Order: sequence, then structure tokens, then C-alpha cells
Amino acid sequence: MKLYLIRHGIALDPRHDLPDEQRPLTPQGQIKTQKVAQRLQQLDLRFERILTSPLVRAQQTAQILLEQGLSDRLETCAALAPGGNIQDFCQTQTAPDAVLALVGHQPDLGDWAERFLWGQGGNKFLLKKAGMIGIQLPATARIHLGQGQCFLLTSPKWLL
Amino acid sequence: MKLYLIRHGIALDPRHDLPDEQRPLTPQGQIKTQKVAQRLQQLDLRFERILTSPLVRAQQTAQILLEQGLSDRLETCAALAPGGNIQDFCQTQTAPDAVLALVGHQPDLGDWAERFLWGQGGNKFLLKKAGMIGIQLPATARIHLGQGQCFLLTSPKWLL
Repeated sequence: MKLYLIRHGIALDPRHDLPDEQRPLTPQGQIKTQKVAQRLQQLDLRFERILTSPLVRAQQTAQILLEQGLSDRLETCAALAPGGNIQDFCQTQTAPDAVLALVGHQPDLGDWAERFLWGQGGNKFLLKKAGMIGIQLPATARIHLGQGQCFLLTSPKWLL
Repeated sequence: MKLYLIRHGIALDPRHDLPDEQRPLTPQGQIKTQKVAQRLQQLDLRFERILTSPLVRAQQTAQILLEQGLSDRLETCAALAPGGNIQDFCQTQTAPDAVLALVGHQPDLGDWAERFLWGQGGNKFLLKKAGMIGIQLPATARIHLGQGQCFLLTSPKWLL
């Protein structure tokens, strides 16, 4: 199984009149995320499913990946919201050899990546906006923490 | 301080009449490594020093980085040979804000990366030939293990 943990693109700065969960991507964030999606398509990447945080900036990022043809399934996953519980995600029903995109936030995605690899997190992964971490997991029916290997950690700077 | 752990390019397969330490890059390995070096130059990467394993395939990889103008200093570092001791490397005298390239082998480089981050290794980083791992360390006079953060793990497929 392969997981691509993808951070949302550049979003509007926090403002007192806009709840955090409603902050959208900026025009620049949309363009850069689209370029990343195009690049992933050129690399023949294809996701069985895109799971996304319910927050607007993540939903918009996931939608861009979908529209670029990287998958034809998009689902909201509450565990991918900031502070979400990785154990809830691990209940996700999926094929043992699935390739999934998980669209979410920092520092959560970096923390999840560490938990997939080592079983615990320590703020060791720096992940830029519209950047991604690739994790390979054993092809088992359930996702177990501490058994993954990392094959990718990149950002738009290195990807585009 | 930033460390770029770079694995040597594609080398000749092991043969009974050629000692492992003398295996050179293949023509394909040279070309792909040159392309990676060009890409790093386009990204304005610059190393204060390139430290390399004494083995021929690593020396040739380091030389390609040097000839591409990524640094003007190339030194052999015995600790970067397969099975080398990271504690020996940590004695290296360097500026606290240096950017260094470390050219070596797998699984050693992945193991070192884990030790820079977590203080111990567990075969959690997959690093392809001519691929690289980027580690950020606190700007201290000595390199301490377990204090790094990872900002990059990529391979020619994702880089070129």
C-alpha cells in the first residue's frame, strides 16, 4: 500500500471575520497546486481514492487533484482535520495494495508520517504547502503504525 | 546547518573480478547523475563542501557534482564508506550554518538520516541511486544526533 500525504496549497491568512475551517486557497495557491497536480499526472501517479480533511483549503486542494484526473473518487475523512486521530484513519476499509492520497494539514501530516514509520511523532518532518510525503506500507488488510517506509518528501520547489 | 545525503549513481553490477570498492558508475549512471547535478544547479543549490565515501562509484558521483559547479571543495570522508561510523562523521569541523553534501551508500545514508532525526535507525528511508535526503540541523558547533528535521527525500524520477 502507498500513501501520499499531501498538504493543502497556500491559503488566505487567518482573519478574525473568517473561521479557520473556511479559509480558501489564494489565487496563487490554486495555480501552484494545479501545477503540482499536472506534474503528478505527468509522472503517471494515480490514486484509488483521495481522502481529504473537511476544511475548505484541503477540499479545494483535493478537488484540484481530482479535476486533474489523478483519481475519480474523492471522500471527506474527518480524521484528516487538524488534531484528527490517526487511529480513526487506520479503520479505513481499503485494498491491501491501494494507492491513496490523504489531503490535510501541518503539523498533523508530518506527525502521521512519523507514526506510520516509527509509531510515534516528534515534529521531524518539514512539509511545505502543496508538498507531499510518500509512505509505503505492508500489503495487509489493516493499516498498522510503525511498519511504513518513507520514499518521498518533497515540495513544489523540488517538484516543479 | 543543512546536510544533503546523496546516494551514488547507478554502478556496474558486482563481479568476481572487480573489488566492490572499485565498481564505477555505468554510462547510464553517469548521465543520470549529471542530469541530477544540472537540476540541483538550476535550483541554486550550493555546497560549502562535498564529502564523499572513498569508493569509486561515490567518488565519481561527487566529482560530477563538483564539475557542475555545486561546490569547489571535495574531500574524502572514510566514515561515509559502507558500514562507516556516524560518530566519526560528527567530529567533522564545520561552520554551524554550513550546507554540506555527503555522498555515500545505502542502507548507510538512510540509517544516518534516521540517526540525525531520531538518534537511531530502523531502515525506514528508501533512497534510490542518485537520490537525496535533506536534513536540517540546529546551528551548533558540533553535530548532535536526534535533533534534525527532514525537509527532502527524493529520487531522479521525482527530481528530473
